[in-house]
Amino acid sequence: MDSGKIAALLKSVYEREIEPGEAMESLKDLPFKDMGFACIDHHRVLRKGFPEVIFCQNKTPEQVVSIAVSQISQEETVFGTRASKDTLDQVEKNIPGAEIDREASLFWRKSRFWEPKENTKGTVLVCSAGTADSAVARETVRTLDILGHPSEELFDVGVAGIHRLLARRELLLQASVIIVVAGMEGALASVVTGLVACPVIGVPTSVGYGSHLNGLVPLFSMLNCCSSGLTVVNVDNGFGAACAAAAMNTK
Amino acid sequence: MDSGKIAALLKSVYEREIEPGEAMESLKDLPFKDMGFACIDHHRVLRKGFPEVIFCQNKTPEQVVSIAVSQISQEETVFGTRASKDTLDQVEKNIPGAEIDREASLFWRKSRFWEPKENTKGTVLVCSAGTADSAVARETVRTLDILGHPSEELFDVGVAGIHRLLARRELLLQASVIIVVAGMEGALASVVTGLVACPVIGVPTSVGYGSHLNGLVPLFSMLNCCSSGLTVVNVDNGFGAACAAAAMNTK
Amino acid sequence: MDSGKIAALLKSVYEREIEPGEAMESLKDLPFKDMGFACIDHHRVLRKGFPEVIFCQNKTPEQVVSIAVSQISQEETVFGTRASKDTLDQVEKNIPGAEIDREASLFWRKSRFWEPKENTKGTVLVCSAGTADSAVARETVRTLDILGHPSEELFDVGVAGIHRLLARRELLLQASVIIVVAGMEGALASVVTGLVACPVIGVPTSVGYGSHLNGLVPLFSMLNCCSSGLTVVNVDNGFGAACAAAAMNTK
Amino acid sequence: MDSGKIAALLKSVYEREIEPGEAMESLKDLPFKDMGFACIDHHRVLRKGFPEVIFCQNKTPEQVVSIAVSQISQEETVFGTRASKDTLDQVEKNIPGAEIDREASLFWRKSRFWEPKENTKGTVLVCSAGTADSAVARETVRTLDILGHPSEELFDVGVAGIHRLLARRELLLQASVIIVVAGMEGALASVVTGLVACPVIGVPTSVGYGSHLNGLVPLFSMLNCCSSGLTVVNVDNGFGAACAAAAMNTK
Amino acid sequence: MDSGKIAALLKSVYEREIEPGEAMESLKDLPFKDMGFACIDHHRVLRKGFPEVIFCQNKTPEQVVSIAVSQISQEETVFGTRASKDTLDQVEKNIPGAEIDREASLFWRKSRFWEPKENTKGTVLVCSAGTADSAVARETVRTLDILGHPSEELFDVGVAGIHRLLARRELLLQASVIIVVAGMEGALASVVTGLVACPVIGVPTSVGYGSHLNGLVPLFSMLNCCSSGLTVVNVDNGFGAACAAAAMNTK
Amino acid sequence: MDSGKIAALLKSVYEREIEPGEAMESLKDLPFKDMGFACIDHHRVLRKGFPEVIFCQNKTPEQVVSIAVSQISQEETVFGTRASKDTLDQVEKNIPGAEIDREASLFWRKSRFWEPKENTKGTVLVCSAGTADSAVARETVRTLDILGHPSEELFDVGVAGIHRLLARRELLLQASVIIVVAGMEGALASVVTGLVACPVIGVPTSVGYGSHLNGLVPLFSMLNCCSSGLTVVNVDNGFGAACAAAAMNTK
Amino acid sequence: MDSGKIAALLKSVYEREIEPGEAMESLKDLPFKDMGFACIDHHRVLRKGFPEVIFCQNKTPEQVVSIAVSQISQEETVFGTRASKDTLDQVEKNIPGAEIDREASLFWRKSRFWEPKENTKGTVLVCSAGTADSAVARETVRTLDILGHPSEELFDVGVAGIHRLLARRELLLQASVIIVVAGMEGALASVVTGLVACPVIGVPTSVGYGSHLNGLVPLFSMLNCCSSGLTVVNVDNGFGAACAAAAMNTK
Amino acid sequence: MDSGKIAALLKSVYEREIEPGEAMESLKDLPFKDMGFACIDHHRVLRKGFPEVIFCQNKTPEQVVSIAVSQISQEETVFGTRASKDTLDQVEKNIPGAEIDREASLFWRKSRFWEPKENTKGTVLVCSAGTADSAVARETVRTLDILGHPSEELFDVGVAGIHRLLARRELLLQASVIIVVAGMEGALASVVTGLVACPVIGVPTSVGYGSHLNGLVPLFSMLNCCSSGLTVVNVDNGFGAACAAAAMNTK
Repeated sequence: MDSGKIAALLKSVYEREIEPGEAMESLKDLPFKDMGFACIDHHRVLRKGFPEVIFCQNKTPEQVVSIAVSQISQEETVFGTRASKDTLDQVEKNIPGAEIDREASLFWRKSRFWEPKENTKGTVLVCSAGTADSAVARETVRTLDILGHPSEELFDVGVAGIHRLLARRELLLQASVIIVVAGMEGALASVVTGLVACPVIGVPTSVGYGSHLNGLVPLFSMLNCCSSGLTVVNVDNGFGAACAAAAMNTK
Repeated sequence: MDSGKIAALLKSVYEREIEPGEAMESLKDLPFKDMGFACIDHHRVLRKGFPEVIFCQNKTPEQVVSIAVSQISQEETVFGTRASKDTLDQVEKNIPGAEIDREASLFWRKSRFWEPKENTKGTVLVCSAGTADSAVARETVRTLDILGHPSEELFDVGVAGIHRLLARRELLLQASVIIVVAGMEGALASVVTGLVACPVIGVPTSVGYGSHLNGLVPLFSMLNCCSSGLTVVNVDNGFGAACAAAAMNTK
Repeated sequence: MDSGKIAALLKSVYEREIEPGEAMESLKDLPFKDMGFACIDHHRVLRKGFPEVIFCQNKTPEQVVSIAVSQISQEETVFGTRASKDTLDQVEKNIPGAEIDREASLFWRKSRFWEPKENTKGTVLVCSAGTADSAVARETVRTLDILGHPSEELFDVGVAGIHRLLARRELLLQASVIIVVAGMEGALASVVTGLVACPVIGVPTSVGYGSHLNGLVPLFSMLNCCSSGLTVVNVDNGFGAACAAAAMNTK
Repeated sequence: MDSGKIAALLKSVYEREIEPGEAMESLKDLPFKDMGFACIDHHRVLRKGFPEVIFCQNKTPEQVVSIAVSQISQEETVFGTRASKDTLDQVEKNIPGAEIDREASLFWRKSRFWEPKENTKGTVLVCSAGTADSAVARETVRTLDILGHPSEELFDVGVAGIHRLLARRELLLQASVIIVVAGMEGALASVVTGLVACPVIGVPTSVGYGSHLNGLVPLFSMLNCCSSGLTVVNVDNGFGAACAAAAMNTK
Repeated sequence: MDSGKIAALLKSVYEREIEPGEAMESLKDLPFKDMGFACIDHHRVLRKGFPEVIFCQNKTPEQVVSIAVSQISQEETVFGTRASKDTLDQVEKNIPGAEIDREASLFWRKSRFWEPKENTKGTVLVCSAGTADSAVARETVRTLDILGHPSEELFDVGVAGIHRLLARRELLLQASVIIVVAGMEGALASVVTGLVACPVIGVPTSVGYGSHLNGLVPLFSMLNCCSSGLTVVNVDNGFGAACAAAAMNTK
Repeated sequence: MDSGKIAALLKSVYEREIEPGEAMESLKDLPFKDMGFACIDHHRVLRKGFPEVIFCQNKTPEQVVSIAVSQISQEETVFGTRASKDTLDQVEKNIPGAEIDREASLFWRKSRFWEPKENTKGTVLVCSAGTADSAVARETVRTLDILGHPSEELFDVGVAGIHRLLARRELLLQASVIIVVAGMEGALASVVTGLVACPVIGVPTSVGYGSHLNGLVPLFSMLNCCSSGLTVVNVDNGFGAACAAAAMNTK
Repeated sequence: MDSGKIAALLKSVYEREIEPGEAMESLKDLPFKDMGFACIDHHRVLRKGFPEVIFCQNKTPEQVVSIAVSQISQEETVFGTRASKDTLDQVEKNIPGAEIDREASLFWRKSRFWEPKENTKGTVLVCSAGTADSAVARETVRTLDILGHPSEELFDVGVAGIHRLLARRELLLQASVIIVVAGMEGALASVVTGLVACPVIGVPTSVGYGSHLNGLVPLFSMLNCCSSGLTVVNVDNGFGAACAAAAMNTK
Repeated sequence: MDSGKIAALLKSVYEREIEPGEAMESLKDLPFKDMGFACIDHHRVLRKGFPEVIFCQNKTPEQVVSIAVSQISQEETVFGTRASKDTLDQVEKNIPGAEIDREASLFWRKSRFWEPKENTKGTVLVCSAGTADSAVARETVRTLDILGHPSEELFDVGVAGIHRLLARRELLLQASVIIVVAGMEGALASVVTGLVACPVIGVPTSVGYGSHLNGLVPLFSMLNCCSSGLTVVNVDNGFGAACAAAAMNTK
């Protein structure tokens, strides 16, 4: 939090190198400027050492590329989510070394300073119910990777064939945090939470039709889960789930 | 549709026993008058041989008792659902021989002509997730009994402890129809439907709190069930589920 | 459920052919691995002997074709629902022998092993209210056919001209299960259920405008039906209704 | 509209009996006071010759009685709707000659000047689906009576037993306006509108349970009616339906 | 109602020109065909003498043209609503003599038998709040014209400048039925209903943004109108309002 | 904001009266502790000179009385809103000099230091549509009085009789801020906003029935108002409207 | 409002220059005709001296250009909001001197008579939470400019990094009115309102995803704000917020 | 998980103490009975060593007491949540040693075996926005205590006075998990999440009025939070939040 700067300032006053009035001017904004919360938009929560994240949804391809170029010039890791096809095309053309995951609508480029987190509790397990949920699941997995947390995927373990899930119980029991990505009625989150003791995060997806209400049904379903220990993020918010899981997975 | 009557009429015209104008008058209403469908309100679907059902919700205790007395005087079986405490008190005092289930808010009195159905496919299994759903589950079981269909109960098999359900798999596989009564997030219906081949009917219940939306959450959850073979009735409508199950359970 | 395998294992232990520790390892997953529930996604409920169903909604044309090709190579029947125009074009080009119903957005190719079910109770009648509902009605009919159940269609019998429905009463009374496909206010399901004793399944459709709420109005309308015996599936879910009807139509 | 008063004033000015300035003062409010829109709250639409209506819902018993007494003292007809049990008790005790309909939660006392309307087109038919809707149906019938329009009731003709309705077709065809009072799924309004040529007004009721949404389901159901000629009023608004029917039934 | 055909048939039997059995065959469908309910979809309510209406929303341009051509070949008036641009293009190219209103998304071609209704009470006034509502207002006016009822338009009289409406009070008072087409908050319907004694029909429109809920806001607003005498149709349903107004405007 | 304290501290460091480390400790919390925002709960926004407001809704009568007594002991003005009957009874018994408005569910006791605001722009006009809205209107008026702003009331000017409102136009034009309290369809706010140039605040009320949605209908209605210049507060939030009006009415 | 005309009329009668009958005719409409409220659609509220505003959303590019040309020919300022890309292209081509803000979807052309308002209280501050809200924020700022009110922008001060907002506290405290434009959960409005004494207007935006409900979430969030002094306009309604702010900012 | 029992069984078979058939019988249910998921209702997730929790909402006072007595007789800790006043009265009378928190509607009695958890990461901080949320906050704190996790409370730190929260930043930064309990607009969760790196759990409460939608507003608000790292539980579900926090706080 750089209290060092304030200490230095106070010392200068003590040493009479600068006058109280001048010091007061400097102090006015310091506490805020140096606080280092570093959050600009809803992706910027990621702390120092973590890359700045570009939430591309309401930005033009040009804006995205220009932010990325500027970050790279400062040797930062770049990570862009919810990027349109157009944006990804522009990134591909203009950002050498960028890796692109079109299914998950994101791209990234790790800087040479990037390295995995050391103080993690274990592995984050990302379960998804069907292939239809895989775009959100991949956003989750990619974000965890960028955040430096190890993850494992368990795909296609829907409740309609509960035995498939039960067969992987060991995997479930070894995870330090579990993220369940599920659309339709979202029952997978309830069943998984009933099987484990670690924290479980539910990510409802907007996959479905009819009275699915664009994901509100699995969202409410998870919120009313009869197994305790489940918490929930917004519909399709794989990124947010990964950030929360990273917080939980930090010793 | 008694085309016989029409044929006879046409013959009379041909024989000039009656005139065209007169015949035309007779024809006007005939098809409808002879139809003979027996349904008055939403409980009256029950066909002949089945008792008339009294839906007590919007009737005074006096009205209910008076309908019941009149049915008994005609040696009919009496069955009253959604009865208030007051109504049940009045029934207890005024209808000798009436049996009362206060938890399920209903009463009945079988006539001496009542007998179980013969052409049933098998047993209807009624599963419920928690003790909180038991009032609805009991309405279901009682209705099946009055309709003359054999049923079995499987209580307290919620998804939070999926092993308890799996332990009863044999019971599930033997049923000819399964009714799943579940509140909270309603996931039990999904899991059960994934385990069996017979028809499954979901009854969402209004038990819950917070974003439970008075039962709309399990209702929508069941409608979006990822296992096929599940159909759904209105929230808390154990009676309706039993009627539908009886139709399905008839050979 | 292959309890035979477990019995054999126990016998081997008794015969001291294998040691308890080794047996324990084998036992751990067996019950699940052998359970044989065949469901992967919400269409996979269809049991053995029935084709695997491809739910195309969230798959690319390439993915769909590749699954279909693989199924055909194993002499399986192929059935794909909710396929986009692009997907159907690819199927037409790449799957020889595939039949395509563009109005119902599906395709199929029966294997030489396909044959109609034998133990059916009778004919499933599919009623629809208007030409606007015909895409869903056709999905229903096609699914029933693939499932091996005989069906009959009764189109354009909306409530606004109730006499048209009444004229077909005999057809209604002969069915063993009835599926009512209806948009707008969904009243057809209520009227039909009032006329028959067999199970009726309501399929609300998303056809309408204004306060139609994308099909929620007929959905809720059917759930609040005053005739008992009606159960409901999700909006536009003709496939699910057919699966449930098949379960009900099995002796 | 009492343009007579304004004419008289202008004449007085012309006759120089009063001065322009004084006349102007008088004119300031006159046009409004005498316009005769006469509406204070949502019941006050009733024109001259019609009684003032007291909407009791948010008034104390004392307030209601005091308004009624004041109206009676001016030889006006009194009509109070949505009155609580307490209010009706107070009315019974304090308003001699008041007639009370406790089921419909209203009371009235016709003045000696009250008389039926002369320029009516015919009879307004009030149909209701079940006994549960009868409170609203009675409010409708009572209001029509107070408004001086002849009405007839057709109770207990729900859609679940469609033949009962069809048997009364003649009654339906003779009506000049039909009001359909229906809860549950509200399908009765659709069916009736399909059978007649006169205007039909739907009154959804709040009777039901589960996903009935306090009457929103039959409301939306009626709004999406596939038969044209149906218009709708608010849930439980029998009074409003009667007012609209009176307007339609006026030659 | 063409009871003439039935009368003729009966006469032929009486005259022994045809045999009873043969007559019976003919009668089988006649009562329904001739009953005159005549409704196939929600536009077909229009009685004989009135044209069949083609609800184009879920039909291909080819289907629409083919229905129209068939109607014209029988010298019927053609009226098509909710037609897409493509459909109108096809109509323009293939239906000689068809008139097209692209703003209102409809077309028509009156047959030589078409003539205005004789037994109307007066003129139907169609008020709309803003230019944005004019598409729906025009559908209303066109439908009234086809139905043979005289109408007048009063455009651009929104509540935001209430004086503009009040200046037209005479027009309002002369109408026999008023249709108010309004989006945004729909307050125009309340104000108009407060000013007149004739029936008023509210048509909420889907014009708006933000929390407008696609027209649900003006819909609910109108249903909660504090002036009695207002009834409401579905959002954007100008056609339905015109049909209901025609029923009300018939002596 | 007491930057004085910081200046003094810096001066002490400069004078070497305290050491940098010690100064740093003192600085850590100062900026926050001295900020002086006075808000504890949603009523406490009122700045110095204004009374502390007690939001009674979730407090026991005892808690309310005890807070009030403590405020009085410090010679503060007391103002309690949303007080239950029980709370008002306790206040009456225990707070000498407290004035109580039972209709508005509030009480107050001005201290001897209370005085009207001086820098107001003019009078705040509070309009309400019907007697049913008067509880909320009175909360508004009482709050304005306590805040020291002059107000005037204009009751019973609903849209159903628009002339009554127009007759008071002068009053409307003289106000510096107008608050419109309206339930039902909330159209009064639209009409008033169309008539004036000053800021208008809409307060939707929960008075109504049927599809009124507990005040959401007038709320949405006001938000979609076609006259610009209207802003809105929460349903029944007369207090909040008064606070906002006070802010707007301050020069 | 021109009582002069009425006085003159009365004087003419008094002078017997015109007869009472004739005067009565003249009086009938006068009060309304002379009222002079200038509102046609929801943007036309702007009084004389202010430009007419063109709400382009439901108009064709041709209609918009033609209105603009006509206004310019009368030396009026032109201001068009919610213009599509097509409309802006047409404006660019056909309206010389028009300035266009494509991000805010609007255009304008000030006449030579345009000048800033003189009687303003101060500066309106427009805060926005993220770059995603900037289109709405710019509509707000542009409208304020056209209305002649000085404004300042404070962009990118979301709640996720609260220090950034706090660092600008002085700017907040100097504003005479603050407009907060915020999507996501809309918390910025609560925090800002807690910091200042001036009126705050919240503009929820439709930016977000998942359970964001197209802006209903920040809308409801702001309505339930625990800080008093906040009023709210419709989702994305930057124009309306600017109009209301202008009213509040007028001395 | 008591695999010991299975091992012993297999050993007995190996030792030929029991026969394979007999062993098979024993095995049938064992795996499930011994799994130890131990969940009966949504509170029973708590693992061994943790007390069984009684969810009292749908149980009679007698049932609750009887469960508690049975648990105590087995020397188990008792913990009952969502208990009505009647239930707490019965508990007080019949369960010696029970401690009761009437504000939080719960009771508990720790057994002599109860002891705090050892492997916790640190302290769970429970923040609440206002006194109105304190019942839910206390349920949270009590549950954490019973679960053996240390917690600290930070009450009355609403967003309306953001400085109060900022003053406690150190407390926030020291917590290992933070639970934010907030009603109204729920903005506190956003602000707190923006300030810390540890996992934050939001508990929306049903405290509010008007458009608060019984807690759906703060629920949706939290789900749309622009700071990442926040996960959410159901409205008023303090118990669930505590369980999830315990999982996160376990090393």
